[in-house]
Amino acid sequence: MYEGAVQDLIDELGRLPGVGPKSAQRIAFHLLASDTADVRRLAEALLEVKARVQFCETCGNVAESERCRICADPRRGDDVICVVEEPKDVVAIERTREFRGRYHVLGGAINPIENVGPDDLRISQLMTRLADGAVTEVILATDPNVEGEATATYLSRLIAPMGVTVSRLASGLPVGGDLEYADEVTLGRAFEGRRVVGG
Amino acid sequence: MYEGAVQDLIDELGRLPGVGPKSAQRIAFHLLASDTADVRRLAEALLEVKARVQFCETCGNVAESERCRICADPRRGDDVICVVEEPKDVVAIERTREFRGRYHVLGGAINPIENVGPDDLRISQLMTRLADGAVTEVILATDPNVEGEATATYLSRLIAPMGVTVSRLASGLPVGGDLEYADEVTLGRAFEGRRVVGG
Repeated sequence: MYEGAVQDLIDELGRLPGVGPKSAQRIAFHLLASDTADVRRLAEALLEVKARVQFCETCGNVAESERCRICADPRRGDDVICVVEEPKDVVAIERTREFRGRYHVLGGAINPIENVGPDDLRISQLMTRLADGAVTEVILATDPNVEGEATATYLSRLIAPMGVTVSRLASGLPVGGDLEYADEVTLGRAFEGRRVVGG
Repeated sequence: MYEGAVQDLIDELGRLPGVGPKSAQRIAFHLLASDTADVRRLAEALLEVKARVQFCETCGNVAESERCRICADPRRGDDVICVVEEPKDVVAIERTREFRGRYHVLGGAINPIENVGPDDLRISQLMTRLADGAVTEVILATDPNVEGEATATYLSRLIAPMGVTVSRLASGLPVGGDLEYADEVTLGRAFEGRRVVGG
């Protein structure tokens, strides 16, 4: 046990995800040895994020006003909505520069083990967005794991009867990967989704 | 890239030791979803530690006043000083409840690759503490690695001529470990340091 303030900091750091007691101690001593200005900047960044960041009323992405940058951008198409689990998925897709529509962030995936059901996700807000008929396609970009697939299946059953095209991101071999290292499920999906390329 | 405040926080978190860009993102989103009170507690712990914690004038350990708790404790013996690299080593040794003397924290170890020489460590302060002759033994508890051993060798050459007993913590097999998994250097040390137990 350290003296008061050091132990308090170690305890607080240890509550962060992925930070164990050893890392918390290492970070605390790093900060002790750092310039006060650096530590103050971190403390201010923490307070700023809580003071300024909220969630977009339309899509659920992180935002610094009522609507996020993407929902507020008039150059983006209103006909396609890409549904993702978390704001970090929006960032990942934006990096590809492939998609110019809007997003909808669910805030997670259906997960019976962790007691997350459809009512815990922003699904009713998605239905409201689809109600006026402006959206012609919904791309389900939930994670390619059990929870993400279950969520995509649930959503496709809900949305398809509305006459909206529902699509799912392709599964297959990662680009730049080695076929022999692909797991069997991924390789199976790559076969299933094979495309005719010649003749 | 996220909007301003979120990205600022990710950047600041990513500067911490052992926190990569992915962890920084995960921690940032965890904090976004946390109660403001929790985030405020972390920010305050950061500022508190810089405002209140200093280094003990005598031994170099972390302290909340000019002297640390151990140096200020009249029940501890003044005849033995245990020399360690970092404040966290003091905590580790205190946990054993084996040692009732004082400490001296060097603030690191001699490391030519990282340009840390004897003058960068609190060695002259240690010499000053030994000058009045009250100390009869110095226990060198620097890490059992190349830098720690080099530092211990340097210190023993410096201190031994003063007529003070210089000792080094025992190296050997870790208790509860498996002999077959011990590395050869540790096993070699365990042989070297073997003790007669019977007859």
